[in-house]
Amino acid sequence: MDKLKIGETELNSRLFIGTGKYSSNDILPKVINSSKSQVITLALRRVNLHSPEENILNYIDKNCTLLPNTSGARNAEEAVRIARLARASGCGNWVKIEVISDNKYLLPDNYETIKATDILAKEGFVVLPYMNPDLMDAKRMVDAGAAAVMPLGAPIGTNKGLRTEEMIQILIDEINMPIIVDAGIGKPSQAAKAMEMGADAVLVNTAIASSSNPIIMGEAFHHAVVAGRKAYLAKMRAVKKFASASSPLTGFLYGGDI
Amino acid sequence: MDKLKIGETELNSRLFIGTGKYSSNDILPKVINSSKSQVITLALRRVNLHSPEENILNYIDKNCTLLPNTSGARNAEEAVRIARLARASGCGNWVKIEVISDNKYLLPDNYETIKATDILAKEGFVVLPYMNPDLMDAKRMVDAGAAAVMPLGAPIGTNKGLRTEEMIQILIDEINMPIIVDAGIGKPSQAAKAMEMGADAVLVNTAIASSSNPIIMGEAFHHAVVAGRKAYLAKMRAVKKFASASSPLTGFLYGGDI
Amino acid sequence: MDKLKIGETELNSRLFIGTGKYSSNDILPKVINSSKSQVITLALRRVNLHSPEENILNYIDKNCTLLPNTSGARNAEEAVRIARLARASGCGNWVKIEVISDNKYLLPDNYETIKATDILAKEGFVVLPYMNPDLMDAKRMVDAGAAAVMPLGAPIGTNKGLRTEEMIQILIDEINMPIIVDAGIGKPSQAAKAMEMGADAVLVNTAIASSSNPIIMGEAFHHAVVAGRKAYLAKMRAVKKFASASSPLTGFLYGGDI
Amino acid sequence: MDKLKIGETELNSRLFIGTGKYSSNDILPKVINSSKSQVITLALRRVNLHSPEENILNYIDKNCTLLPNTSGARNAEEAVRIARLARASGCGNWVKIEVISDNKYLLPDNYETIKATDILAKEGFVVLPYMNPDLMDAKRMVDAGAAAVMPLGAPIGTNKGLRTEEMIQILIDEINMPIIVDAGIGKPSQAAKAMEMGADAVLVNTAIASSSNPIIMGEAFHHAVVAGRKAYLAKMRAVKKFASASSPLTGFLYGGDI
Repeated sequence: MDKLKIGETELNSRLFIGTGKYSSNDILPKVINSSKSQVITLALRRVNLHSPEENILNYIDKNCTLLPNTSGARNAEEAVRIARLARASGCGNWVKIEVISDNKYLLPDNYETIKATDILAKEGFVVLPYMNPDLMDAKRMVDAGAAAVMPLGAPIGTNKGLRTEEMIQILIDEINMPIIVDAGIGKPSQAAKAMEMGADAVLVNTAIASSSNPIIMGEAFHHAVVAGRKAYLAKMRAVKKFASASSPLTGFLYGGDI
Repeated sequence: MDKLKIGETELNSRLFIGTGKYSSNDILPKVINSSKSQVITLALRRVNLHSPEENILNYIDKNCTLLPNTSGARNAEEAVRIARLARASGCGNWVKIEVISDNKYLLPDNYETIKATDILAKEGFVVLPYMNPDLMDAKRMVDAGAAAVMPLGAPIGTNKGLRTEEMIQILIDEINMPIIVDAGIGKPSQAAKAMEMGADAVLVNTAIASSSNPIIMGEAFHHAVVAGRKAYLAKMRAVKKFASASSPLTGFLYGGDI
Repeated sequence: MDKLKIGETELNSRLFIGTGKYSSNDILPKVINSSKSQVITLALRRVNLHSPEENILNYIDKNCTLLPNTSGARNAEEAVRIARLARASGCGNWVKIEVISDNKYLLPDNYETIKATDILAKEGFVVLPYMNPDLMDAKRMVDAGAAAVMPLGAPIGTNKGLRTEEMIQILIDEINMPIIVDAGIGKPSQAAKAMEMGADAVLVNTAIASSSNPIIMGEAFHHAVVAGRKAYLAKMRAVKKFASASSPLTGFLYGGDI
Repeated sequence: MDKLKIGETELNSRLFIGTGKYSSNDILPKVINSSKSQVITLALRRVNLHSPEENILNYIDKNCTLLPNTSGARNAEEAVRIARLARASGCGNWVKIEVISDNKYLLPDNYETIKATDILAKEGFVVLPYMNPDLMDAKRMVDAGAAAVMPLGAPIGTNKGLRTEEMIQILIDEINMPIIVDAGIGKPSQAAKAMEMGADAVLVNTAIASSSNPIIMGEAFHHAVVAGRKAYLAKMRAVKKFASASSPLTGFLYGGDI
């Protein structure tokens, strides 16, 4: 079986989904089900231990792995504090490090992210850093103890797709650690493409949550990720400059062979 | 249920596959099974009534609809003759019209194709013309009685993908008849994209037949077509210029609300 | 000297411009001057022999070649009538055949265009047919006597660029007649790219006329066309998969060679 | 006049060129002349004070600004040493910081580059750091005293063009300092596009040096950069979804208005 291993966890699904931007929490279990996702990311703020209705944890299947993110952190120190709070709140020991100080493009700060990765990995967290795809920084994240690397395809929520394709491909080829494309994926075809390129998984939130029908869209992304992964395994052929017939072209009518 | 109707036939699968370029006919039933395809295209030359081993028909599930093509035809007259031979050989009354006189790019001749469409539709064939995407010619094909229109994404066998995207989108938006993207699709992500654009189906041959593992690749394309179709139905959101956070960004650590 | 010959005319400039969409005719001579264009296209309707101020011909340098178009024609017959009127009105014997019956995308009708080309070429016109890029139809236009072929890059006025790149490249490689990319070019970089691909000239109207400063934009397109043409002549190198240093990388500080 | 100011220097040309990969130094003065470039980058190793024939400085017009690079440096310390050697060798006080420890893609190390920028700016150098486009790192370079920022379009020498377009556009929009696109530009059309996007200049080496005719290719890039800059100044129009006629379309033949 083609499983993805992150830390000690083995996953059948290579589609991670988010929990933000849904019109209501009630739809979340249905999307988790239709998308077959096993890793669910969430902002710690939405974990409200005092109100079951507002506690996002109550809407997530217990068999899923939680991936709390450090959304709201503007530097390594804040990310570390949020990660510790998440673990203390019962979210487990996985953490997606997001350090963002740019309010317009919401681009990650690789330097602060590496610092936080280093601290949290030493504390036993399974650390998945969100990053601007950069080979040197990805190597530093691996050295700092990251369990996977999460390069962005385009700024969060833009649905622009794999605008950083060139650099993501280099990470895939050079980094010996799972590569999970996070942010920017707006359509199933883009998720499929990331998987065809050799990405190990993708994280999708906005494209599912803000579609007209998140349940069906979750299913669509499930199929897309499976499609891309299988194509990667079955090896696609290179592009050819000239045409090549699928059917015999010559001598049919006059060849006398019917 | 979301079915595709062509002529009088209702289809659950929107992936049509070809039978050319496989290393052996033995693999064909397995690919038909893994791809869940219900429409199979074939060159009439490969229908050999005198030799069961070499007769391609013996490798195609009886529940599938056959789509014999007129490969080898260089003008309308030849296409018409091949179509009639195909029907007489027991291939049913569907026909994919291919009229090709260019040996390098194998591009279709729309003008001759329209003529053949007109003749064969009048003779009761379910006619699917293969074409260079052109709005005026697609209208003429519809007027001539085509049951669907099959624009190419790129020259046959090149795996280049949807190089004619602009014109295919116009056909999808303007032609009130199934649009089946044929030729050029080299990866599942490209098939998904065609379906997201609103194509009704895709035909894939080279990308499956020449992959390292056609059975898995057939499965990959099945998932890709389902993904793209479901995304089209669930409506994707537009691309945004600027980022938009999935998680709350501000006031977390200092907001006092935990 | 690298001249473009069309009919009997030798041109130094490979940028053709249009006369529509300008805020006033007064700016036209300045744009002709800044763009260095020698071929100017115009709709016959704008040739008003009774009013010098409204007669577009009075704003076009006498050394330019006029390229009246058959805008407004919905079939071959109408195109032929407009072409004859243009010649009778003193516009010379060049004609750009535009036959358009689609009001939304303004796509040309290749079939009617071929018919008009055939008639007008026999009457001694230098015929430049505007077309949807299609290899078979381009061959028919050449056979019908066209002096050049004008494939569209994208629908008129959209500024989308070379969306039909794949098919235009095939025309460039296969058709032994000048290829002039017409319609869709929205930026100088796109004009440069068309020329790098081997196009013989480009026609630009909307991108210049509707810019904030048509005079400077005309100059920009002039430079772009020169850039692309010179690059084509000087031969560009292929894309490489991996990096290749421009400067020596190793052994500098410790190599002992300074 | 539209000049580019870097440090205290005002430039008329926005095309910087390199000196590597030429078949012989003799061609260099001709390329400088044809490209009209005023800033010439060079590896310090090629400055040989003991041999006039091999000393690259003897082939560069005295009116040009030299931009020695720190090619060969694998960390900040080495870059600083090379920069100081360059200044001591009479190359002036500009320096392009290149810190590269990846031998396959030759990607820059932003972190070490920022450190070197900080040290050298304090020593009075005009520092132009070569970087992987990253908003946070570009801000740090500006804070460290960079006189411009040089993001890569694609790995050095690949001719792949603006693969990092998304991130370069963000730098252009957000960084209040000249942005010079460096590395990856393989064709004049790509240089024009970078300028249309609002880049302040481009640096081109491989595409010129390895073309069949570097002198003409230098001229081509000159025109392309001028074209892109002028288009940026004259403001291009947005892309439109539907067509828009350049010429009046209706009522021509039957409108009775001629």
